[in-house]
Amino acid sequence: MRIARFSVREGRAVEGGPAAGSVSFGVVEGDASQPDSLVLHAMAGHPFGQPQLTGESYRMQDVRLLTPMLPNKIVAVGRNYAAHAAELGNAVPDVPLTFFKPSTAVIGPTESIAYPPFSSDVQHEAELAVVIGRMCREVPLERVPEVIFGYTCANDVTARDVQQREGQWARAKGFDTSCPLGPWIETELDPADLAITCTVNGDLRQAGRTSLMVRSIAELVVHISEAMTLLPGDVILTGTPAGVGPINVGDEVAVSIEGIGTLTNKVIKRG
Amino acid sequence: MRIARFSVREGRAVEGGPAAGSVSFGVVEGDASQPDSLVLHAMAGHPFGQPQLTGESYRMQDVRLLTPMLPNKIVAVGRNYAAHAAELGNAVPDVPLTFFKPSTAVIGPTESIAYPPFSSDVQHEAELAVVIGRMCREVPLERVPEVIFGYTCANDVTARDVQQREGQWARAKGFDTSCPLGPWIETELDPADLAITCTVNGDLRQAGRTSLMVRSIAELVVHISEAMTLLPGDVILTGTPAGVGPINVGDEVAVSIEGIGTLTNKVIKRG
Repeated sequence: MRIARFSVREGRAVEGGPAAGSVSFGVVEGDASQPDSLVLHAMAGHPFGQPQLTGESYRMQDVRLLTPMLPNKIVAVGRNYAAHAAELGNAVPDVPLTFFKPSTAVIGPTESIAYPPFSSDVQHEAELAVVIGRMCREVPLERVPEVIFGYTCANDVTARDVQQREGQWARAKGFDTSCPLGPWIETELDPADLAITCTVNGDLRQAGRTSLMVRSIAELVVHISEAMTLLPGDVILTGTPAGVGPINVGDEVAVSIEGIGTLTNKVIKRG
Repeated sequence: MRIARFSVREGRAVEGGPAAGSVSFGVVEGDASQPDSLVLHAMAGHPFGQPQLTGESYRMQDVRLLTPMLPNKIVAVGRNYAAHAAELGNAVPDVPLTFFKPSTAVIGPTESIAYPPFSSDVQHEAELAVVIGRMCREVPLERVPEVIFGYTCANDVTARDVQQREGQWARAKGFDTSCPLGPWIETELDPADLAITCTVNGDLRQAGRTSLMVRSIAELVVHISEAMTLLPGDVILTGTPAGVGPINVGDEVAVSIEGIGTLTNKVIKRG
């Protein structure tokens, strides 16, 4: 099932459904490669537990897709693809390298990455995002599937120059708009071996497979939840494959993951 | 004004006031060095803007003090006292070292630090915490006072062995209970030169003054808000003075800051 979060565009509200501008969850049906075929069925309340549809449906052009989750926290993992670690001159760490991105960094698939004025080398990092479905801590390896709600595409946007200058990465990877998520959460997916790509203005920059992760998703959930409670809607970013590089104002950057879809964001000047 | 967050203890609710167990904000009056003199006046709603008192008051023994804020994010600053940087063999960084602690790490003044099973060297770090009062970004130096709601005591509890083993500090400084805050927020305080101490079981371990910070509070707010939006209730931890050291199960650790009060937490085994 594909879970989206959306607002209805002005003038496109339907009788009995959510008002234009108000935020709802919904279920997306149709062929993602044929956007015109997609239909969004509105949902009452939130998607955890037993989601209930309201009966109203929308064409995708009648809604604005928002970030599919507003996570309380985002825990990201660095250097989890050997070829990416190597391209930046780093070794694969002995222990997973974990850092946070703040909730204020999150944007959705129709919002733009605002180039931060304190960097001159902002880069894309296409990543598979894991969305947590249940409050949990100290999750045993075999029970990890129970706490995962689904998967979406993420861009771990990074001010590379700031990252190299500052020892910890709060500013380099935590600035506003540095965490695009979307377009929706796929709840039925085997994440073991999916193609993951990033294009900039249509040119292929990153191409990897999730099977190349140094630590599996299950190992990462065990490692992170050993230390901290994960909440429903929290997001784990699982690392980026090789091919990271700069994005600039005016670019359009797209992260695609097999079985999920494509997350596209423009890069704009910070207003 | 001292702003606390509290729940009324079982059997101590008063007519017209909040029910036992429900959470409220309140204003603390009296001499903090004489706990018996303290009175807590309940507040309607939240303390931002123009707080209104409900008219009900409580003695401190009738309430349980909770963390005075539930921050969306905590941005912490490393190595902001030269003597502390030196004691761990580090230089003062050219740029402030900023990292996040997650909201799930926060505990209040009557809760306990649960020793995480993956560390054998958990340490105290007494810090002055700045509580943000207004949504803001790119705050100019001269306008920093406008965005600060007040100040409280914090303990940036750190698994030192994990910190040294893992390149980024999400687990070492982000585990559950690693961010005690309290006992309340002092909204009228000049933070420029306050005594800050940490005791373990009554023995003095850290003693510094906020005037020894490498970067001032105003500089830190400018630096952090250059990158990211700060929200009301967000917390900035301003670094720890020299004298950090281990805490163990059974210890009682107390952070005191002149003009605020004392934040005391027991250390227990994780349940």
